[in-house]
Amino acid sequence: FNSGDVRRVTLIPGDGIGPEISAAVQKIFEAANAPIAWDPVDVTPVKGRDGVFRIPSRCIELMHQNKVGLKGPLETPIGKGHRSLNLAVRKEFDLYANVRPCRSLEGHKTLYDNVDVVTIRENTEGEYSGIEHEIVSGVVQSIKLITETASRNVASFAFEYARQNGRKVVTAVHKANIMRMSDGLFLSICREQAALYPDIKFKEAYLDTVCLNMVQDPSQYDVLVMPNLYGDILSDLCAGLVGGLGVTPSGNIGKGAAVFESVHGTAPDIAGQDKANPTALLLSAVMMLRYMNLPQHASRIEKAVFDAIADGRAKTGDLGGTGTCSSFTADVCSRVKDLE
Amino acid sequence: FNSGDVRRVTLIPGDGIGPEISAAVQKIFEAANAPIAWDPVDVTPVKGRDGVFRIPSRCIELMHQNKVGLKGPLETPIGKGHRSLNLAVRKEFDLYANVRPCRSLEGHKTLYDNVDVVTIRENTEGEYSGIEHEIVSGVVQSIKLITETASRNVASFAFEYARQNGRKVVTAVHKANIMRMSDGLFLSICREQAALYPDIKFKEAYLDTVCLNMVQDPSQYDVLVMPNLYGDILSDLCAGLVGGLGVTPSGNIGKGAAVFESVHGTAPDIAGQDKANPTALLLSAVMMLRYMNLPQHASRIEKAVFDAIADGRAKTGDLGGTGTCSSFTADVCSRVKDLE
Ligand SMILES: CC(C)[C@H](C(=O)O)[C@@H](O)C(=O)O
Ligand SMILES: CC(C)[C@H](C(=O)O)[C@@H](O)C(=O)O
Repeated sequence: FNSGDVRRVTLIPGDGIGPEISAAVQKIFEAANAPIAWDPVDVTPVKGRDGVFRIPSRCIELMHQNKVGLKGPLETPIGKGHRSLNLAVRKEFDLYANVRPCRSLEGHKTLYDNVDVVTIRENTEGEYSGIEHEIVSGVVQSIKLITETASRNVASFAFEYARQNGRKVVTAVHKANIMRMSDGLFLSICREQAALYPDIKFKEAYLDTVCLNMVQDPSQYDVLVMPNLYGDILSDLCAGLVGGLGVTPSGNIGKGAAVFESVHGTAPDIAGQDKANPTALLLSAVMMLRYMNLPQHASRIEKAVFDAIADGRAKTGDLGGTGTCSSFTADVCSRVKDLE
Repeated sequence: FNSGDVRRVTLIPGDGIGPEISAAVQKIFEAANAPIAWDPVDVTPVKGRDGVFRIPSRCIELMHQNKVGLKGPLETPIGKGHRSLNLAVRKEFDLYANVRPCRSLEGHKTLYDNVDVVTIRENTEGEYSGIEHEIVSGVVQSIKLITETASRNVASFAFEYARQNGRKVVTAVHKANIMRMSDGLFLSICREQAALYPDIKFKEAYLDTVCLNMVQDPSQYDVLVMPNLYGDILSDLCAGLVGGLGVTPSGNIGKGAAVFESVHGTAPDIAGQDKANPTALLLSAVMMLRYMNLPQHASRIEKAVFDAIADGRAKTGDLGGTGTCSSFTADVCSRVKDLE
């Protein structure tokens, strides 16, 4: 990506509060003069002639064209045969690395004030392979699939991310004491990649130990890389330390494409009531700007968001404030302009 | 078990600090006049004629005789083919339920003062099946095995435990949105058992969500039941909230036998220096007394331990005190006697 000309981004507003928080992001990007044009698209699966539900081809085409997407929360249709739509997007575009930075926020006090970690999660296989069988009645197996290729993709991504973001330590999180072959393979690939990044310190730690230490002293961790399920768990744990999924961003990154998304729910109970907090989607959009090589726009919007939360007057209800989605958005917009 | 006559318990002192903390437990039990006689035994694997390492037959015989064991930490021998000895004990005696209560301790301040949860973990299968294959070079699968039998064993144990311990809610922790068949089976068995315990409230929750909520407000949880790996993770997370593995007990319970153990490491760096904290093993021994239907002895020792920690003068170094293993033990002994 070159900075300068306008880039098109696929926008999947999503369900529930998705449209409101997406609109908030669009407004703030406009106020920041971010050189982004949006292609909104619906991702609700359509039933093909063969009876199978699929992501609409328009969405897939747009993703392939634009290479970058921003996505609000999606409701997974209920009923047999529907796998999570959030996951479908990750798999469809082979977005092999899921990146979730968690940082203590000034203006939103939790028990912790020293969190600054990034979980990097393998995003396509592991316990999420979807391969399961009933062997005999009452005996089921699920297959955890670990490949050298996907492990190398995510491991090399983690070290590259650390280097490019001035991070010092990458910790591989595993249970290779139990899953010697699968987590063992993952770990050996991490070691191999570590050798290529002598400037980054490499550590290894058991998942259970990391959970224990994380709640006692998160400041001991920096970048963490791990198989799919462990990342699901640890990223939520870390989000909990800083205030939850409403304030933590997420990016899914592959070779040909990247989708940035808030990972909170669709919150149908408050949808359409101007109560939703757009922070998670906004910070995801900030990650997107950095990915698109627009660091100035990213930093400006990020600072405006952090300042608005620290100031507190326009904070939304989930953060204990009295602001609305629109008053918070307006506050961020005016701060973005002031920072110009 | 009837109270009254002396019962024999197999004692596996373990490695590193194991012997010191086991001796501490023995002393305190003596001071409390607990009607327990110990059969100490070594569990270091011996190589059979076929070249395979096995738990010594003397240990197995004793376990079958006594039915109850207390176990310090074990070092797993290094080298190929050795699976964790801690796990070997659980599997050998089909100890299908692993119970770990975590409670905030007066006298040992952490960020949390409102933790009172019990994790109950399936202890024999799941991600710990040990079944793994390399399909082709660079492609490995590990099998997560869930059976109706083991799920029912642990689920019914959890509800029975809740009822007998005055607990109100059992939450089944799962990822059945992802592992629909395996976690789905586990969950359906939990539901089936829940129906048999109308006096206990039943809830279901995703593992990632539980991790997030647990670090924000642990008071919302009570008893949690889950597949093997999830229990490994969540029990360590909860231990972290109250001060770590040095202060949290664990019991492995099966139909014919039960082994109570501290789950911290062998701490070779401080072994033999009278620095070790015996609390985790002591509280495990207290769980054992309750299991053996000796609730008075259990409560008396438990109170003495909690009081000693709350008082603080004899607290060991890991809890920020200046006490030693023996001064702490002496303190607990004198409190136990005073409580008579
Ligand atoms: C919605 C769910 C399928 C998903 C996951 O398990 O990965 C979510 O928890 C996440 O972390 O993005
Ligand atoms: C030592 C290790 C094999 C064990 C496990 O993974 O179960 C430990 O973490 C535990 O929780 O008892």
